[in-house]
Order: sequence, then structure tokens, then C-alpha cells
Amino acid sequence: MIDAAVIGAGRIGKIHAANVAGEDGIRLKYVADVHEPGARALAEAHGAQVADVEGILGDPAIQAIVIASSTDTHAPLIEQAARAGKHIFCEKPVDLDLVRARACADTVTSAGVTCMIGFQRRFDPTFAGLQARLAAGEIGTPEMLVVTSRDPGAPPLDYLRRSGGIFRDMLIHDFDICRWILGDEAHSVYATGSCLSDPSIADAGDIDSTAVTIRTREGRLCVINTARRAAYGYDQRFEVLGSRGMLQAGNVRPTEVTAFSAHTVSTDLPEAFFLERYRDAYAAEIAHFVAALVNGTPVRTTIDDGLKALELADAASRSFVSGAPVTLE
Amino acid sequence: MIDAAVIGAGRIGKIHAANVAGEDGIRLKYVADVHEPGARALAEAHGAQVADVEGILGDPAIQAIVIASSTDTHAPLIEQAARAGKHIFCEKPVDLDLVRARACADTVTSAGVTCMIGFQRRFDPTFAGLQARLAAGEIGTPEMLVVTSRDPGAPPLDYLRRSGGIFRDMLIHDFDICRWILGDEAHSVYATGSCLSDPSIADAGDIDSTAVTIRTREGRLCVINTARRAAYGYDQRFEVLGSRGMLQAGNVRPTEVTAFSAHTVSTDLPEAFFLERYRDAYAAEIAHFVAALVNGTPVRTTIDDGLKALELADAASRSFVSGAPVTLE
Amino acid sequence: MIDAAVIGAGRIGKIHAANVAGEDGIRLKYVADVHEPGARALAEAHGAQVADVEGILGDPAIQAIVIASSTDTHAPLIEQAARAGKHIFCEKPVDLDLVRARACADTVTSAGVTCMIGFQRRFDPTFAGLQARLAAGEIGTPEMLVVTSRDPGAPPLDYLRRSGGIFRDMLIHDFDICRWILGDEAHSVYATGSCLSDPSIADAGDIDSTAVTIRTREGRLCVINTARRAAYGYDQRFEVLGSRGMLQAGNVRPTEVTAFSAHTVSTDLPEAFFLERYRDAYAAEIAHFVAALVNGTPVRTTIDDGLKALELADAASRSFVSGAPVTLE
Amino acid sequence: MIDAAVIGAGRIGKIHAANVAGEDGIRLKYVADVHEPGARALAEAHGAQVADVEGILGDPAIQAIVIASSTDTHAPLIEQAARAGKHIFCEKPVDLDLVRARACADTVTSAGVTCMIGFQRRFDPTFAGLQARLAAGEIGTPEMLVVTSRDPGAPPLDYLRRSGGIFRDMLIHDFDICRWILGDEAHSVYATGSCLSDPSIADAGDIDSTAVTIRTREGRLCVINTARRAAYGYDQRFEVLGSRGMLQAGNVRPTEVTAFSAHTVSTDLPEAFFLERYRDAYAAEIAHFVAALVNGTPVRTTIDDGLKALELADAASRSFVSGAPVTLE
Repeated sequence: MIDAAVIGAGRIGKIHAANVAGEDGIRLKYVADVHEPGARALAEAHGAQVADVEGILGDPAIQAIVIASSTDTHAPLIEQAARAGKHIFCEKPVDLDLVRARACADTVTSAGVTCMIGFQRRFDPTFAGLQARLAAGEIGTPEMLVVTSRDPGAPPLDYLRRSGGIFRDMLIHDFDICRWILGDEAHSVYATGSCLSDPSIADAGDIDSTAVTIRTREGRLCVINTARRAAYGYDQRFEVLGSRGMLQAGNVRPTEVTAFSAHTVSTDLPEAFFLERYRDAYAAEIAHFVAALVNGTPVRTTIDDGLKALELADAASRSFVSGAPVTLE
Repeated sequence: MIDAAVIGAGRIGKIHAANVAGEDGIRLKYVADVHEPGARALAEAHGAQVADVEGILGDPAIQAIVIASSTDTHAPLIEQAARAGKHIFCEKPVDLDLVRARACADTVTSAGVTCMIGFQRRFDPTFAGLQARLAAGEIGTPEMLVVTSRDPGAPPLDYLRRSGGIFRDMLIHDFDICRWILGDEAHSVYATGSCLSDPSIADAGDIDSTAVTIRTREGRLCVINTARRAAYGYDQRFEVLGSRGMLQAGNVRPTEVTAFSAHTVSTDLPEAFFLERYRDAYAAEIAHFVAALVNGTPVRTTIDDGLKALELADAASRSFVSGAPVTLE
Repeated sequence: MIDAAVIGAGRIGKIHAANVAGEDGIRLKYVADVHEPGARALAEAHGAQVADVEGILGDPAIQAIVIASSTDTHAPLIEQAARAGKHIFCEKPVDLDLVRARACADTVTSAGVTCMIGFQRRFDPTFAGLQARLAAGEIGTPEMLVVTSRDPGAPPLDYLRRSGGIFRDMLIHDFDICRWILGDEAHSVYATGSCLSDPSIADAGDIDSTAVTIRTREGRLCVINTARRAAYGYDQRFEVLGSRGMLQAGNVRPTEVTAFSAHTVSTDLPEAFFLERYRDAYAAEIAHFVAALVNGTPVRTTIDDGLKALELADAASRSFVSGAPVTLE
Repeated sequence: MIDAAVIGAGRIGKIHAANVAGEDGIRLKYVADVHEPGARALAEAHGAQVADVEGILGDPAIQAIVIASSTDTHAPLIEQAARAGKHIFCEKPVDLDLVRARACADTVTSAGVTCMIGFQRRFDPTFAGLQARLAAGEIGTPEMLVVTSRDPGAPPLDYLRRSGGIFRDMLIHDFDICRWILGDEAHSVYATGSCLSDPSIADAGDIDSTAVTIRTREGRLCVINTARRAAYGYDQRFEVLGSRGMLQAGNVRPTEVTAFSAHTVSTDLPEAFFLERYRDAYAAEIAHFVAALVNGTPVRTTIDDGLKALELADAASRSFVSGAPVTLE
């Protein structure tokens, strides 16, 4: 039985805590949060204790840390945990600064601990199912990937200002999808975008709509379109054209009810947002993390995957500013 | 906190035990099974104890019993539990014999306990979502219901011989759907059928394919078609025509992957069988049962619903044998 | 080049005239209608002449007659045309009276002419595509057929009163589908129904909603549900369960636009009514008729098919009145 | 009645000839083709005469010319026809050379004749239906357009070598869709691509897979992905995100049959290629051309639209070569 702690008792911390508590082979011992009542409530819900980071890292029984606190704490916590010899599950991103993130990865490597980054989309049943079929050769060699990734609405401006920009905050997941599905690294990135939904986003120095083109070393193409505001909800799809066919990953709906009125035939909107859409994926990634620790097998989304996605986000940001494609090394 | 026991540690008992264990407000204290090692394994998985029925009913802390043992034990266990003042959740059917089932219901009524029958389909997100929209008047008054209910394959002959026949064993769920969706009681039932997939089913005195027509007191029509063997899997759909439109409840798929090959465009088969298809429904019905006990509110699927569905199964069986429609009282 | 005449310049006569005019190998020479201006307008639109029935049948150049006049004229016109040695395409039904229809068929047989009945649904690309795949063995042996057949609204009462009742007027197409798809003749028919949409239909002696169950000689099952009024339009679907799978024939939509709003995801309603839904089928049946005449090959929907469908309609009508299933000889 | 001639009796000339022949208000008088037997066969099929271009343009009865000959003849024929005072329907493109195409447009303007370019996709029921709903404000202001445009296979190398390259030959339709749907002109174009399906395409100096990003003057975004070879056939879809929702235009299938086997649920592939997919669109564009001539109303796809699409193709070609985005004037 692995004793674990969750750091961060916010929206995503709650998800992880529940999944840790519900998973065989792992036990939730501690919850930490800078907001103590939040930590307390979450700990009580799962029969765990409240502790601070030092207490957690100082407990030799603790083998695994789940980091779900704010982005700026990720790198320091990863390093502290690694030095304390704890295995780490950390929400994306490692850090908004690539140099800092690389230093962090070096620390993890030196410490020899497992560090998994929470690219939960790879564990979504639909996305994972598609990837498995692609990997099995069902449509031959992948040639082109089209990713549609839209949120139901923009986050608060305060969040946006500290987010690192849309490419680092929102597209980092899509960059990971690109690498994972095309099985090839980016050669060049071109990014453009606009602020179309709300001028205050532009005032905050960001955009809300992007179009990104990635060309891989093998010449495969990936086009990503994103928007902060899709009036119909959370839109998470991709499709990959291969030499022998195509695989599409569609949205998931709450129910399979179809309604026929005098005017139209209609179905449900997609699942409302990431907590609903990726409910199963969040559980599956924790299960995968635990299985990796128990079996000593590698994790599927490493800190290196976190760095690679961040490199793409950086390149896209530079491309957007310069107006020209950026070639990666 | 409600202390509960699960009786029966088979396939469906395991589902209910896990849902009881995972639900707030209720605690799994005991598991019982005639096969002691099965009870033990299930109890241990959820930190519960093994007990026999007498021990469970004799423990004054126990407020609720979940009956998931074989069909022939349902009626005696319901009666024992009722007399012991325990609230009851029981898998369908109450009994294969209507007279016996009625006696059972009388005992429950005298005891004044809650008795919920596990018509889990009413708790399926798609079916429940449809019913809520129908009840809200979205398509006006219901006029016609078409139910398609097909299993991926027939159960073992040994099971079939003791099942009470296809109308009592398989269509009892569909009869409940009919009453629930049309909101009206049957006036007449006509049932016909055939044995088409496997002659040994006929040898066992049963059929594998049925077509049932129910006409309600208000003249609404329900047609149910069932098959023991659908080569493509578990098919659970219905559609209701109303005066202002139609609502369809479709199958649920494991993933939303669509594959385009040189020959076809394809999607997943429906969820494999009832354990997968109704996974959320099983959890929701236990949550509903607990909420009813906690809040003192009525349950949605009562022992009377169990009787009414059984009356329809009886009528359908008689219609099939006689070749003529049967009028209900 | 086959010279042909169309008798009847109403809605369906116009369709047939245009298809005859547009088909290679056949030429529209005459149009006849009891309403002379209607005949004139239609004739002029296609460069044809107006004639009366006697004139048409007396012209030795005429080889083929398309009968699209009112139902009560079908039998006499078929007989006159047959005796004149003309090949015949006649809209369904042959006659509302089975004895009269049989006499008519005898006359056709004696005359040795081709007589095709306009069961256009067999020529619909979707329905015909399904049947071809079924016949090729794609899903093994057919076991169960579920037919949904609903109109957008009831015809005028005046029409209803002379229609022969819903089983002869509306379900005759569905009875033909049953025979065609199951490839087996009916052993018994049970029909029930109600008047739910408009009491004046009941006053006119008819019903608007039916549920019909047919059991074939091989024990295959067919359930047909029909309604005169589906608020969402014209609903024409069927699905056949076979020993190795299922084939569904869905509705056809005017466009493939999908709209995502803040409330729903929606697509087009089905094609509005039979003229739109079966536009291609009407053209294909005329092409088939012409090809049969040119090549001396048999037609796919014979006058015998017309009789058989009428026998089923008669049996269903009797079953509805008696409340008991009717066994066919 | 408008007398018309079709120049070019190849695949697309046959389509136009049949549509001209079948349309009220216009009459096919002549067919011309450099391959005389082709012209003869097509003329005979529609009761027209064979003529050469001089004969056609010299006949004062001729009001309209449909140009369906090879691309290199478009510009000279447009100019000759314009100078002869004939109205013109010309297949895309006006010319592969933008300067030449502009000169051609000047000639048309001077002559004051109608010149419609055959961007038939604007007349496809699905695409046109979507655009009408967008124009009616159903989803607010358009913000992002995603176009998927894939052929079932590459044309012969000989064709490719004279095609002007994939951007001029294949994407010219997609560039027209972009302008039509976004209702805004391009500000910048970035194009990249690869040769992935067949190295001989690269040897011929072309590519087979492209990703193009257009940013309009209003900041709207359009991403186009194309491939010469989609193993599953002809894929023609687009979707537009607006401020209040999204509209998708899907592929069209030959039938609405869905097949359920032991392994999968499958539907038809999309219509095979452009002749099938745009069958209705080809008829509708000719009907629109005729209506414009008869009513003196403007055509929907002018020679200026042809120039604008060509400007985008030129810009995309330059962007691909230079590796940098191209700003339009």
C-alpha cells in the first residue's frame, strides 16, 4: 500500500484526492493547502489528515506526492519532493519558464524518482482508444492531425494575466496531443491568432482565438484551432488522417437522448467542461500512476513530455509575436 | 450514517456492495452469501464483515438490506427483513409467482418499511433524462412507445429452465419501462414469439425472440421487441412518440471514436452488456435509495412497481400460450 | 423507343410524367385526366398531347400506360389496358377490395402483359441498398423486422372516408416492406390501434395510430408502428435483425448541416413528405419499368405483390375489429 | 428561351450539357470540342448540333456560352465570348496566371456581359444551407473557419505538371469557401505542406498535403487542410465558429443504411468524388446562371471571385516556397 499526499485542495485537487482515495493500492494520508479550511474539508471527506508540505515530505511513510497547487508552486514542489525521494504526480505545466522547467527535470533525473505530468487527455477513453488503434496500424502512417480545442468561456482576467498566455496555458494540452498522436517531434511552428470575443482579453495582453500549424521532422502536418469561448460549450475533438484511413475522436455527451420537434432533431451539447469531460481520464491517470509505482513500470507522460510541450508553447508564442514560423532545434 | 448489509456476493452483489461502500451516508457493515468464500472476498474488499442472514437481521444497528441473491430467495428475504424492520433494496423480480409476490408486498406494507425494487434502467442517465423531458411536457402527451431490448447472447440452459420464461426474466424490465414512460396502466397485452437462434432453447421450453403489444387504458400503444441473441451486442433503446414530437433513447458506446477505412465509416458497438451499460444506473439507484432513507422521501421503484411488471409478464406469458390478447383487470 | 401515356395529372401523375419524360428509351406521348386543364398543363410541360383513355388505348403505338388516377379507377384501367395489350405501371393499391383486385390480376395474367405496382419504397436508395446487403447474406438470416412509418399529418377527412382505412391506405406499403425484407409470407397478423391525434378521425370510422405484429411461416417476427401525425415530419425507417447482425434504414435529410447553439446540437428534420423522401425512388421505379420492358425482364413489384399486401391489410383490418389475431391461409 | 452552347465535351462538359438541356428557359443549341467525336456524341444525346467556337460565337441567336474545356483555353474563350457579347459561364480557374486572369476580367467588364465562374460548392445544398443560416445571423459573427478538403486520390502526373500546383488546382475552391463564409478578405496567408503519399508527386514539383492559415482583415481565422489522397474517399467538410455557436457542413452519403456486425457499427463512405458529391450543386449553379440571365440579376460567383481566389492561391504558393507568411494588399 502506497501512502500518498495531495497538495492543493482546489477544484483539481479534489478530483485527484477522490481518485487516490478510490484507487486500490494507494492510500490518501495527507492533504495540504495554503488555505487550511480547504485542506481540512478535503481531508475529512476522505479520512485523511491535514499537514503542511514540510510535514508531508518529512514523513518517511509517504511515497507519492500529487501536486495540484497553483502553477507557480509546481517547480519548487517537484524539486523538494524529488530531493525527499518521493514519487511525483504533477499537474501541467512544470513551469511557465522553460529554463526553470529544465532545471526541475534535471533534479528529478538526479533523484531517480518517478515524475508524471498530468496530461490527462492521453487517458481519456476516446482519445486513448484512438491512439491505441493508430499505434496498432489501423490507418497506416499518420500524415495529418486536426485538433479542435475550445473552452466554453474565458477564465477571469486575473487568471489570464498570470497564465503565461494562451499558448502556454491552453494549447499546452494540444501540443502534447500533437506529439503523442503524430509520434514525431516538431520541426517548425507557425502560430497566429486574434482577440475576437472580448477586448479586455487583448487589454490583458492575450488573445482568445488561435490557429497553429506544426510541421514535424517527417513532414507530417498538424493544425490546431482553439478558442476561449465556444457558445455551445467545451469542444474537444481531433482527427488523424493516415495513409490508409482516418480516425476521429469526437465529443462525449451526457446522454444519448435525441429529440425530434417540429423544427429540428437535436442531441445533447458536449460534456460541460474539463471536469465532466475528463472525469474518467482523471481516474485513469491516477490508476496508471499507481500501477507504475507498484509495478516499477514507466509512466506514459513524463516530465520530458512536459518540457517538450512547453517548448512548443514557447515557439508558438514567439511565432505569434514575430509573425513568422519558428524552427525548433 | 446508515449501516447496511448486502446479501449475495455474485456479479450483481459486487456491484451493489461497491456502490454502497462508495456512497456518502451509508456504510457497508456486512456481506452474506451461501458461498462463504465469496462473501469473505467481497467483505474484505470493502472493509466489511461476513455474517449470515440471521446475524444481519439480528443486529439492531442495521437499517438497510440489499438483496442480490438468487431469485428464489427474494420473497423470503424481503419478508424476513421487513419483519425485522429493515429497509429493503431488492433486485428484480420480487418472485416469479404473482401470488407469492403479492403476499410479500402485503408483509412490506404491514411492516411499514421502505422496499425498493432494482429497476435500474429508470436511473440510467439517458433513460432518466428522456423521462424527465417527457414529464416536463417537451413532446406533449405520449402516444406510442417502441422498445428494443436485445441481449448479446442467451444465458445457460440451466438458468433458462429456472428463469420463469423470457417474459418474466427478460421483459420484466421492458414492462416497467412501458408503465414508467407511458404513465398509464395496460389494458391489454398481446405477445407472440419464436425460437430462432438455438433449438435447445425451445427444448428448454422457452423462446428467444418476442414481439409484444400493449394497449393502455388511454389507448396508448407500446410495442416491445426482444431477442436473446443480437450478434452486435447489447441493444437497449426506446423511443416515444408524443403529440408534439419524439424522444429517442439510444445506446451508449465505450468511446466516441469514428474510423474511416477504404470500405466503411464505423463506430464502436454499444456497451457490452448490462454491467457496463448500466454502470452509472446501478450507482444512481443506490444513491436514490440512500437519499430516500435519509430524507424520508418515497422511492421511485416500489414493490408495487415490481408487482405491476410481473402482472404484465404473466399476461404476456398467457397471451403467448393462448395465441390471443389478454385483457388486464 | 417506347411510347407511353400517363393517366392522372395530379401530384403523383406529375412525378411519373416527369420521370417518363426524363428517362431514355421511353417517350411521353399522352397525358389524360378527368380534369382537362390539368392534363393540358402537364402535357405541355413535357411536349406531350392530351388524350382520353379510349384514345390512348386505341393508339397502337402506345406500349405502356402509367396509371396515377384515383384509387377507384385503378382496377378498371388495369383491365382495359391489359385487354388492349398495353404494359401497365399502376400506383398502389390495385383495388381496395381483394376480390376485385384478384379478378384484375387474372385479367393481367390472361393478357400476358407486364403489370408493375408502384411500391416505390423498394426503389429508395437506402431501402434498396439495405435489401441488397441482406440478400447478399451480410447479416445472416432475417429474424425480426421493426418498421416505423409515420406521416406528418392526417389527410382530409373526405379522403380518409374513402381510403379503405389506415391498414389499406397507409400500411399497405409497410406490408410490402415486410414481405420483401423478411422474404417469407405471413402466418398470422395481429393489429391494434387508437385514435389519438384528432377525434374527427374516429368519427370518420378510422384510427390514426397502429401497432401490427406479423409472424411469418418461418416464425420470423415483424412489428409495424404507424401514426398519421408525427409532429416532426415524415418518418420512414426500418431495421432488420439477422442471425449475424442488424441493418437499419434511416431517414434522409435535406442537408448535412449540424448546428451547435448554446442549448443544443441539431440537424435537419427528415425530408418533408413522400414526394421529397422518395424523389429518387420514383425515378428509379420508372427506370426499372422501362428496363424491364426493353429487356423483357420481370418487374420487381408485380400485381401479385399488390394482392399479397392487400391480403395483409385485410387481415389487419379484421384483426383490429375482432381484437384477435388472424391466421392467413 | 436562351440559346446556349457548351464548349468542352469531357467529364464536366457532359454534366453541364445535361443540366443546360434539363433546365427550363435555356436550350442547348451547340456542343464544341477539339475532339469532334466527343462533341458529336454529347450533342446527339441532347438533340444539339456540333459546331466550332467561331461558328458558335458567330451565331447571333446564341446568348450564353458554357466553357468546360481545358484550363489553358479559359482565358482566351472568355475574352472571345465577351467580345462577341455572349454571357459566360466558365469553369474555374479563369487562368493559372493572375495577370492574364485580370486582363480577362477587364475584357469582361468592358463588354458588359455576365461572367459566372463555376464555384459549384456554393450551390451544394448543405454548403448553401449553412451559409444562408450564417448570413441570417444564427450563430452571430463568424470567427473561425476550419475546412477539410481531401480527394480520394491524386490525378495523373501529367495533369499535375500542368495544374499550376496544388494551391491553384485544388485549394482554389477552398479559398473561395473561405471568402464566402467569413465574408471578409484575407490579410495574410501562411501555407506549408508535404509530399507524403507518393514521391513521384514531389518529382513532378508538387506536394500532396497542405495546411493553410488565413487571417482576414477583421482578424478572423481560417485553417484549411487538404490531401490528394484520403483512403476513405472524397472528404468535403467545413465548420464555422461564430460568436453564438457553430455550424458544421458534413459529408453526404449515398444511403442512410447503418450496419451492426459482431465487430462494428458502420455507415456508408462519403459520396465517391466531386461528380457524385456535387451532382445537385452542378444543376443548381446552371439554374442560377439561367435565372440571372432571365431576370437580369447578378450572379453569385463572379469573375472577380475567380480573381480573388487566384490571388489567395498565388499567395499560398509563395508562402510555401518562402516558408513565411505572405501579406496581401
